[in-house]
Amino acid sequence: MTTAHHAPGATRPGGRTARTRQAVLAAVLQELDDGGFAELTMEKVAQRSGIHVATLYRRWRCVEGLVCELLTDLSADVPLPDTGTLPEDLRVLARSISAFYGEARMSRLIEAVVSAAARDPQAAMVLRSFFDERLVLAGQMVRRAVERGELPPETDPEEVLSALGAPFYYRILISRRPVDAALAESAATAVWAAARAGAYARRADAPSYGPSPGDA
Amino acid sequence: MTTAHHAPGATRPGGRTARTRQAVLAAVLQELDDGGFAELTMEKVAQRSGIHVATLYRRWRCVEGLVCELLTDLSADVPLPDTGTLPEDLRVLARSISAFYGEARMSRLIEAVVSAAARDPQAAMVLRSFFDERLVLAGQMVRRAVERGELPPETDPEEVLSALGAPFYYRILISRRPVDAALAESAATAVWAAARAGAYARRADAPSYGPSPGDA
Repeated sequence: MTTAHHAPGATRPGGRTARTRQAVLAAVLQELDDGGFAELTMEKVAQRSGIHVATLYRRWRCVEGLVCELLTDLSADVPLPDTGTLPEDLRVLARSISAFYGEARMSRLIEAVVSAAARDPQAAMVLRSFFDERLVLAGQMVRRAVERGELPPETDPEEVLSALGAPFYYRILISRRPVDAALAESAATAVWAAARAGAYARRADAPSYGPSPGDA
Repeated sequence: MTTAHHAPGATRPGGRTARTRQAVLAAVLQELDDGGFAELTMEKVAQRSGIHVATLYRRWRCVEGLVCELLTDLSADVPLPDTGTLPEDLRVLARSISAFYGEARMSRLIEAVVSAAARDPQAAMVLRSFFDERLVLAGQMVRRAVERGELPPETDPEEVLSALGAPFYYRILISRRPVDAALAESAATAVWAAARAGAYARRADAPSYGPSPGDA
């Protein structure tokens, strides 16, 4: 039994570790469909997946660990476009995000992950590094646009991508209404206009008035 | 004892109900400072506030109810500007939001509320109606701008204000970094440019591609 010596992300494709992981994540998704995050337990996931509960605890520690890994796994399938222009790249990516979170269970999943992060520092770290990695990857879209001369060189790629994602998370977590097609159009149009207006330029001259200035 | 017959929000200013409410909300805030939402219990709030725990359960039902009411109470103090131009109104409001959530305990509070909403339908309803009410009030800023001819008449006021708030909640809940002054400047600049570009126009012609189209 070598599974215990693998880090959660370190799977051998097609091996037993990978099969265990897929069975467990599929079970988590089904449990979330059935009862939501509030009713998710390690025992239910063990029962549904056929994986021993001790293995779950050893590898994922808690339900927070499970939902974070599920989000990472599913979101990796959202493709990063390269259409040749940034406004079109933004539109395509916004539509992918909209389609992803348009499924109610994906909205419930991100809600579960944010909720997990509020209570568990390790879940918070997983969430933060997951989005950091995605932003760096997606930032390539903006760096290409800068090279093409579509945006000023001082544009911060991660800020642009954060701004594209923000309306979706606001809709899901704060407004608590379904993500829809109109939101994707609005988000893409808004970010393009704002980026052109220099809203996401790196600024060394930002005025300091809040109690926690400058974390960038 | 008439307290039990009052709805949570229905306080007589200066009366015993109002004093109870203030004592309880102050205790909740202190408890959140001390141990965060994860460690918040009705019993701790009762002990700190000196209000009987049965009163807490009768009036707020659960810790979720307590944190939602605290957020409503505190956010009501964020003023809605009327400077004469929308870009300046947006900037002033963004700075207020930034100052509000720049306090770490306010970030923890919104995190607690969103987390509560994920597990408790009544907390979700409170959160949603709170933000709906704030958006309608703040929408006045945008309606005045439309009257002044600053924005096209088809601009959706609630969409503009949602877009102003979205980056703050993304920063707190998703990026998990402190809200700062630069974010307020970026958010205000972005929303103004996007609104001028028509990103928040009410649209009947939005393409329908997601699985949950058109909730507006």
